[in-house]
This record gives sequence, structure tokens and C-alpha cells, in this order.
Amino acid sequence: MISWIGRRPLRSEIPRLKARGTPKATKKVDISDLTPEALPYLAQAAYFELGVFESLASAVSTAPNLAAREGLSAAAGRALSKHHGLINEIRRRGGEPAVVMAPFAPALDHYRQKTTGADWYELLLSCYLAGGLLDDFFIRLADGLPGDVGPRVAQLLGEDAGTDVLVHELAAAIAADPTLASRLAMWGRRLVGDTLLVARSAMPLQTASGESRIEPVFTELIAAHTRRMDGLGLTA
Amino acid sequence: MISWIGRRPLRSEIPRLKARGTPKATKKVDISDLTPEALPYLAQAAYFELGVFESLASAVSTAPNLAAREGLSAAAGRALSKHHGLINEIRRRGGEPAVVMAPFAPALDHYRQKTTGADWYELLLSCYLAGGLLDDFFIRLADGLPGDVGPRVAQLLGEDAGTDVLVHELAAAIAADPTLASRLAMWGRRLVGDTLLVARSAMPLQTASGESRIEPVFTELIAAHTRRMDGLGLTA
Repeated sequence: MISWIGRRPLRSEIPRLKARGTPKATKKVDISDLTPEALPYLAQAAYFELGVFESLASAVSTAPNLAAREGLSAAAGRALSKHHGLINEIRRRGGEPAVVMAPFAPALDHYRQKTTGADWYELLLSCYLAGGLLDDFFIRLADGLPGDVGPRVAQLLGEDAGTDVLVHELAAAIAADPTLASRLAMWGRRLVGDTLLVARSAMPLQTASGESRIEPVFTELIAAHTRRMDGLGLTA
Repeated sequence: MISWIGRRPLRSEIPRLKARGTPKATKKVDISDLTPEALPYLAQAAYFELGVFESLASAVSTAPNLAAREGLSAAAGRALSKHHGLINEIRRRGGEPAVVMAPFAPALDHYRQKTTGADWYELLLSCYLAGGLLDDFFIRLADGLPGDVGPRVAQLLGEDAGTDVLVHELAAAIAADPTLASRLAMWGRRLVGDTLLVARSAMPLQTASGESRIEPVFTELIAAHTRRMDGLGLTA
């Protein structure tokens, strides 16, 4: 595992891909030609963030105490602000948000429904892990966007997701209950599979050459996912 | 009805009390001594806005189309940003948000549960009417807060609530279905009663003198409520 100690900003809850490696670690794989067109890219990312918002809002409603509810409402607000930032980019390019997002709704709704989980903790873990993984993924894909939209979107998606509260609630519950820990470890493993499929489907051409070049990126995404699991005391 | 045509900013969906009257209309009743202490005031207003956020987020999840969902998510974001603005004021005064809000949770939860409504349209109407009325009410009470917190809070609560989308969805549905119109008119009448009770309970002393001085304020709140109902084509 690459050491990123000392590079991690104090209050960032997720080691972002872009801030991660040591200089020697990698040549960054160029996958810019695997990025979809700007509008479909923005639409998928926007619809995904709307889903994260809805999941977090539902976690707010079912939170067991007011402090958690309060913290989760802030995290929901962060996801919503990413969503609206992407919506602004869509409008800036002349797209009608509801129209451009519509084609991606069925698959993402299905994904979200599958990953809602059986209780509040599974829901939190989904928000944390899937939100982290797909933010990382969309940041990575943003490299291939034309003009200045790529850096702007990467900046937006890389903002603090406010998920400290999720980590805090999950870590406390996991430490207190070994049964929960093993159930959540299973849930986390299942999530990563479903989430990588969503990531894969966001990319246009699935040629053999595309497949082989995307592979190292998926390896990076999984490594970051594993660190999130480790941070919670879960075996990935 | 007082004419406020020509005074209404183009995209404001609610004629705010502070921007309403014509010069001749009223001497503003001074109720500043009926305002609770700053922390309980901020806590109640913050918890109320959290409830509005949760109701709107739940309306997002059940919206019949993506355009409505998108618009409602923006309205939810506005309520959330009012909530977090109030939370910041609480922290600024050394309060712990979850602690200071806790005493107000049971009554406000009960109110929100009673006013959720039987379907999506009743929920939208609740968000629009109760949100409008209680924003107006808390703005009015803010007069009595010490220092500069009053104007700052009034400014925050007076910001555009993004409820154009609620008005649009409701007005279209009401125009299309007279049965819905009469059901929603009944629902609106019931809401105003429950909401005024919540407003009343937010004030500390309920002496005979307090009662008589608060009466004109309630009359103002009801007048603004009636205009909202009229605007939707509902008989108040």
C-alpha cells in the first residue's frame, strides 16, 4: 500500500486519488479518450450526486440521534451542492438538466435501490463507500473533458464531502459490535462490485484496448476503497 | 387585500411581510419583548428549517418527474442553507446545536408528522404554506433579538426559498383537477391552524397583554397565507 501519511490534509475524510501517490509511484494512465462527451458525462455525474443526496437525506430522517442528523444534513448539503454545480455546467453548455439526465436515471435508480441496505448502518456505508468511489472515478474521467470544464468539475467533486460524521458513526458502531462489523464487511464487498459496474457503464467504448487501459484505473479505485474499509476497521 | 403589484421582485415566490405593506397600511406592532432568548429562538427556527428540508427531500424522492425532482432539490437546498445559517449563529453564541434543538424536537416532529399529508400534493402544499408562514413568523420575531443577530437572521430567512417549483407543480395540478383543488383547499385550511399553534408555542410568555399584542401579527401572517392560497387558485 502506498504511504500517503503526511500528504493528507487534516480534515479530509477520503484520500483523494489526485492527492495520493508519491512521485515515484505511478505514471498516471492516460484514459482521456475513454471519457464520454461533456454533456453525458455531466449528466451521469449530476444524477449520481442527486442520488447520493437522496440517500443521505433519507439517512438524516432515520438517524438515531440529533447530532448524527445534524452532521448528516451537512453531508447531504455537500452532495447537493456538487449536484447543483454539475447542473450549472450542464446549463452553461445549453443542456436541459432533466432531459440530459433522463437516459441515465433507470440504471442509476436501480443501482441505488440495490445499495440502500437493510438498515441505517448499511445505508451510511453505501453513502460513504459508493460516494467516495464514484467521486474518485468521475474526477479521474474529468481529465478527458474539453476546455476548462474538466479541472472545474474535478475541483467541485474533490471538495470535502462532509463524510466525517459517517465515518464517526460507523466506526463507533463497528467497534461496539463484532456482528455488525462482519455484516458491514460483507456489505462493503458487495457494494464495490456493484459500484464498479456503474463506473464501467459510464464509459463509452468497451473495446479490448479500452478494457486493458481502464484496468489500472480500476485498481486505483479499489485501492482507495480498501483504505476506506481499513479506516473503518473492516476487512475489504 | 392590499395591493403589492409592482413591489414584488420578479422571481420571488412569496410576498414577504417585510416588503409588503403600502406606507399607509400599518403601524408595525412592536412585539420585540415577546421574542424568546436568542438561543431558544435560533434553536427553534433551525429545527424548523431542518424539518422543511426533510419534507422537501422526501418530496424529491417521490416526485413524478425529473424536472420536478430537480427543482425540488434546489428548494431543499435553500431550506438546508437556512438551517445551517442558523446553526452557525448557534455555534457563534457558544451553543451546541444538537443540545439546544433537542427540547423543541418532540413538538416540531409531531407537527411535521401531522402535516405530511396523504400524497405528494399535500406534502408540497405543506412545505409551501407552512414554510412560508413560519419563515414570516420567525422574521417578525427576529426584531426582538439582541445585537446584530436579528437583522442577520431576518436576512437569512427572507432569502428566496426556491418554492417557484412547488407553486408551479401545485397550480398545474389544481387547474387540471377540481377534486384536487377542493381537497387541497381543505388541507390548506387545516395547515394554517396547526402552523399558527406552532408559532404561538415558540413565544415565551402567554399573558393576556402578550396575547392581545400578538394578535395583529397573527392577522398579518394569516393575510400572507391567504395570498399564497389565492395564488394557487385555492379558497382560503
